[in-house]
Order: sequence, then structure tokens, then C-alpha cells
Amino acid sequence: MTTNHSAHVPEKLLDILPRMRSYEAGLIAVDLGAIKRNFQRFTESISPAKVVPVIKANAYGLGMSQVGQALCEAGATEFFVATIDEAITLKTQLPEATLYSLYGLYFNTEDIYFRHNIIPVLNTREQVERWNAFAASKGQILDCVIHFDTGMSRTGLTAKEGWELVAIKEQLAHINVVYVMSHLSCSETSTHPLNDKQRVEFEKLAEQFPNSLRSLTATPVMSMSSHFKMDMARVGYGLYGSCYSSPSVYLEQTMYVYSRIIQLREALPGDTVGYGAGHVVKEHSRLATLSIGYADGYHRFLHNYKTYVYIGPYRAYLAGRISMDFCVIDVSHIPEEFLFEGAWVQMIGPDIRVSDLIQGTDFVPHEIPISIGKRYHWEYLN
Amino acid sequence: MTTNHSAHVPEKLLDILPRMRSYEAGLIAVDLGAIKRNFQRFTESISPAKVVPVIKANAYGLGMSQVGQALCEAGATEFFVATIDEAITLKTQLPEATLYSLYGLYFNTEDIYFRHNIIPVLNTREQVERWNAFAASKGQILDCVIHFDTGMSRTGLTAKEGWELVAIKEQLAHINVVYVMSHLSCSETSTHPLNDKQRVEFEKLAEQFPNSLRSLTATPVMSMSSHFKMDMARVGYGLYGSCYSSPSVYLEQTMYVYSRIIQLREALPGDTVGYGAGHVVKEHSRLATLSIGYADGYHRFLHNYKTYVYIGPYRAYLAGRISMDFCVIDVSHIPEEFLFEGAWVQMIGPDIRVSDLIQGTDFVPHEIPISIGKRYHWEYLN
Repeated sequence: MTTNHSAHVPEKLLDILPRMRSYEAGLIAVDLGAIKRNFQRFTESISPAKVVPVIKANAYGLGMSQVGQALCEAGATEFFVATIDEAITLKTQLPEATLYSLYGLYFNTEDIYFRHNIIPVLNTREQVERWNAFAASKGQILDCVIHFDTGMSRTGLTAKEGWELVAIKEQLAHINVVYVMSHLSCSETSTHPLNDKQRVEFEKLAEQFPNSLRSLTATPVMSMSSHFKMDMARVGYGLYGSCYSSPSVYLEQTMYVYSRIIQLREALPGDTVGYGAGHVVKEHSRLATLSIGYADGYHRFLHNYKTYVYIGPYRAYLAGRISMDFCVIDVSHIPEEFLFEGAWVQMIGPDIRVSDLIQGTDFVPHEIPISIGKRYHWEYLN
Repeated sequence: MTTNHSAHVPEKLLDILPRMRSYEAGLIAVDLGAIKRNFQRFTESISPAKVVPVIKANAYGLGMSQVGQALCEAGATEFFVATIDEAITLKTQLPEATLYSLYGLYFNTEDIYFRHNIIPVLNTREQVERWNAFAASKGQILDCVIHFDTGMSRTGLTAKEGWELVAIKEQLAHINVVYVMSHLSCSETSTHPLNDKQRVEFEKLAEQFPNSLRSLTATPVMSMSSHFKMDMARVGYGLYGSCYSSPSVYLEQTMYVYSRIIQLREALPGDTVGYGAGHVVKEHSRLATLSIGYADGYHRFLHNYKTYVYIGPYRAYLAGRISMDFCVIDVSHIPEEFLFEGAWVQMIGPDIRVSDLIQGTDFVPHEIPISIGKRYHWEYLN
């Protein structure tokens, strides 16, 4: 059965198969080398502005500790995360790294940040004053990031709060504002008029903090005009690269997801496939049931689109709704030798980037890796 | 800050709060007692037919080992899972339990099933013959389930295969068919004509295996006519109860999900909220940013509907798109004393069952618990 077990996966993954137990339901490989190279490409592309990786949400599903370690090897020294728990966990793994937590001082968390040596992103005027008072009480000057909101209405100081802060900034003797930052709401569209509006508003506030570095953009930085680069870009999904390339920089795919054929069947005209009998077979067909469903992060809503997979060099389309643990594809056109129980099926890989998978859907690319394949065998390539 | 920390959660969860670290981003409580009572209600409702719990996909997101243990305490002795990995893991935790794996013998897995004492659900004629041959090679009679497909075209023997199997059943001397089963495609609609069509087809095949128990239905068994009950129902999401009640049986909610207010802000007319500036503020408003996003399983697509949360006794609606780590709600109408950073916000709870959350959407209820709150503090109530 060795032949079966190794069929249909790309050469770079072949080494993994002997390490797997033969019955495992699927395989995910994360290419840390590709993530490192994407980081370097971003860095070269926006230099002298700096790239600070965003590895919140378990590095967008790819594995925070492995991805963080790889990015340190590639030269990253600072990281953004969302929750305080993420920061504390990452700090134990990368004690030398500088970590910023976007959730800020939303509760009485000053002491937590202080003890764990994590830098808060301060999101309200009150949080800035509270951090300053805390630092004073310790007789220290403590680092922070100040986040001005300019159009997301999500986190960060409102314009009113921002200018109130400017008015009292001389009182903030105990904080060192490493960065001032804001976040664009429409930067996926590089020509969106809100981008310039947000930039101008941010620049006015940032000028008031001449000793702080400025950061406005995230992954889309590469396709935006140079005004937006400033001193630093906070780059998340671009590093994970299955989803985004700009005209100037090629980003490598970093994630490979393979399910397996659980069963093959003949289907006759009139046979119904899946819940709600949502697909009716038109002519004598061959169907394959795959070891992936919405419990594996292969979202139910993908069935509404012409979603496809690859078996060897052959593309095959979904038939019927995605179940919790299974989906069904039509393999009528695929030669017999490619079809057997246990065969590997490419869900994301050389022929299907995440951007292909979500083509024509309402998904954003980062939604896919974030939840995919938690029952699968995971491997990291370096 | 003790007052703040304990506000807005129901009394049954108050004991949990002192065990949490004050900065945690959210709280999930799973009520194992409620799951046990739901199991008992199902059992009473369909007796003398038996209820066999389905705890695949980490017990639909609630925790396979905790839920499995609780159901054993409630009298369950058999369980269905999907993958072989799930079965092996569960067997180490519940060595006395009888486990059926729906993925079947899709690869050369006979020996794995045998060594771990897991019973395969056989999905093709070839798998039945292979299991019989394997048992013969061991000089034993081995248990199995035979799955006839009658309308899902997903897993299980086709009608043709089923009757081929009947023709050779005398040769299958080394297997003991504990159950014959099939699975309905449209049982959410109890009057759907396919239900009876599938039932009749299944009964014809099942008659050929008079020594085997019969199982056709899943959670919807309670709202279907008594013909469908047969000897056993495989019950999954009904046990987890946030999503389904029948006219005859009340099912308790089993999952409570609370996020927190990360930030409060004033918003002015014309302010835009979230990515794509998808929401424009009409009048002076108060907004709250919550510690939940699609990385926490609060699906991005929920923003298209009138999705709401509760803060204390007050309902509040989403404003703008759901981000990866955040969502924003309009709290303009909520009294000041309920609004503070760190306050608990009910996402799923006494006032919001999963069925409420997905009302009017295209989600099925099981999609929500399966991915929610992986960054949160989890507790089990018993």
C-alpha cells in the first residue's frame, strides 16, 4: 500500500508521509521557509520602513509559536498579537522578542503587562493616562503604542480624544510612545478615498508625537503609494502568503492541505447527494467522499460556489452540501488509477491557493487557514 | 474591580469568575449536567429504542472527553465518532465504552481497528468483505456496523452494493453485524417525502439482517413518526441542546459564551465602522468593541443579519463587519452603569440560544459551537 499512501502529494511533502500514521484523516504542512522569505520580500519592498509581523489568532491559524520562531530567525524582533493570553504565551517562547498586545488595558491589566514585559497598545485617552500613572507609581518610564482611530470606530482614540491627549501630552512624563498607529478600513482598495482621508487625519496627530515612529498600514502596504509606508507596517496575512500578491512582490504559498478519499461510489441519474438532497445526479457518475467537512474548517458556505479540489492533475468539483465530517466530489472524468480509498486530495496546494478557493465567494482569505484542519496531521517545513 | 468582573453573567456562572485570570478575553461554560439531562430526555422519549450519542468533531465543539465522560455517567455505553484518531483518543479515556468510527476501513486500517478495539462502520461491499477476511485471518468473529446509503450518496453501500451483499451474506461468517444503519438527507423537514422513500428502501435491506439492530435517524428522531425510531437513534447536536427542541421534549441549553467590552467610544454622524466602512453612523452614538471576532468562531457572515448580544438585560446589535479579533455593537440605549471596559457580554446564553443567533441566516446550528471561543477560558459545570 506504500504506493497508494504516497500518491498525489507534491514532492516537497513526500518526506512527511512516512512520519504519519497510515490512517490519519488529512495532512497540513506549513512552509516556514516560505514565511521567512515572504517576510524578507516585504522588508525589502518597503525598506527603510520596518515590517512588524502580526501573529495573533495563532498566526492566522498557522501556529503562533512555530511561525514566531521562524520569523525571529528571519530577523523579526517585534510582534503584534491581539489578546493578553497570546502575548503571555508567546513571551515564554520568544523571551527576547518585543510584543505588543492590541487589546490594550481593557481591564485592570497594567500589572499583567508590566510583569510579563508586554507593551500595551493604548486605545483610549483614559488608558494612556492610566498607563502613565502606573509607570509613575513604579518610578519608571514604560513603553507603549498609542492607537488613534481614524475610520474603523473599533479600537483606538477618537479624534476628540486624540486632540485632548495632545493638549495634555506634557503631563505624560512616564511613558515612552514607541509607535503611534492607526488602521485603514478600506486599504484592500488602494484607490479608496477614505485611505487618504484617514492618512491625513493620522498625520496631523502623529506630528504631535515627533519622537514616536508612525504606522498606518497592514498587508496592503505594498500596493499603496509611498505616503502610506511611514516608519512601520504591521503585516499579517501577507506573510502567510496563500492569499495576496502585489504587482511588485511575489508572495509564496505557505500552507498545504490534503484530505483523503474515504469512499468511492457509482451514482445513478436521480440519485440525491448530501443534506437537503441539494444535488441531483444527472447521468451515471462516479463520486468520491472526502475526509473533510465544516468541522475541519471547510466552510459549509463554500458549497454555493464552484468549489474544486485536485486529485493528481485532475480538477474535481463539489457535489451537494458540505457535511460536518465529509464532502462529496464528482470524479467521473478522472482515470481509474487515480481513484482509490485513502488517496490524497489537494484542498489547498500548488494548484489551489486560498485566493482560488474563495474566488467569487464572500470569504476573506484569512478566514480559511484560521480554522482549517484541526483534526489533521500537522507538519512544519523549514 | 470585583463588581465589574462579576457583572452581567448568570448566577450559575458566578462561581467560575474567581478561578479566571482577570485579563482573560472571554468565557465559555459547558453545562455537562444539562447534556446528561438531554440524553435522559431523548432516551425516555424514544424508548424502547436506544440513544447512542455522536461525539465526533470534539463533541460538536464542546469537548469530546468531558462530554463522553458525562454521558457515560448518564448511562451511555456506546458512541459514534468520525475519524479513527477520534476513536483512538476516546478509547484511552473511556476504555469500557463501545466506539464506532464512521470513517470505516478507508485505508488498510483493519489492524488499527482491531488493536484498539474500535468497531468500524463499513461503507462499501468491499469493506465488509475485507473485514470478514481480516476476522477470519484472526480466527475470530468481529463486530461491525453496516451502513446502507439510501439517499445521501455520501458514505455507505449503494443499493446495488447492498443487494450484492445480501446475495453473499452466508459467506460472511466472521463478522457480527451489531447494527445496520442508514442516514436521512432531509429529516430536518419531518414531512419531506424523501424520508419515507429512504425508510422503505432501508427496511427492505435491513430485513435481510434479522439479527442486527436497525438505526435510521439522528437528532430529528423526536419529531418524526414512530416508524423511524427503529432500534436506535444516533443523536449528536440534540444532546448539546442549544439548537433544537421538539414539541414533545424540551432540551436544555448547554453552552454559555461571554465576550468582554474592550473599549467604549462616542461616534458622530458620518463616522464609519469596521472594514469596508460598511456601517455609517447616523446620529451621535455610543459603540462598544467586543473581544470576539471570526478567529473566535464568531463568523464574519453573521454581520449580514440583525445579530445581537446582551449586556445585562439589554439587547444590542452589531454595527459593521466582524473583524478577526473584534466586533462592534451599538450600545447607545444602554444605561451607563452597564457599560465599562471588561464588562461581560452575552454572545450565547440565557437570552441567546444558538437557534436565536442563526435566525434568518444560512447557518446550521452545529456550525457555531464547533469553532467558537478557542481563545477563551473554558469551564465545565456538572
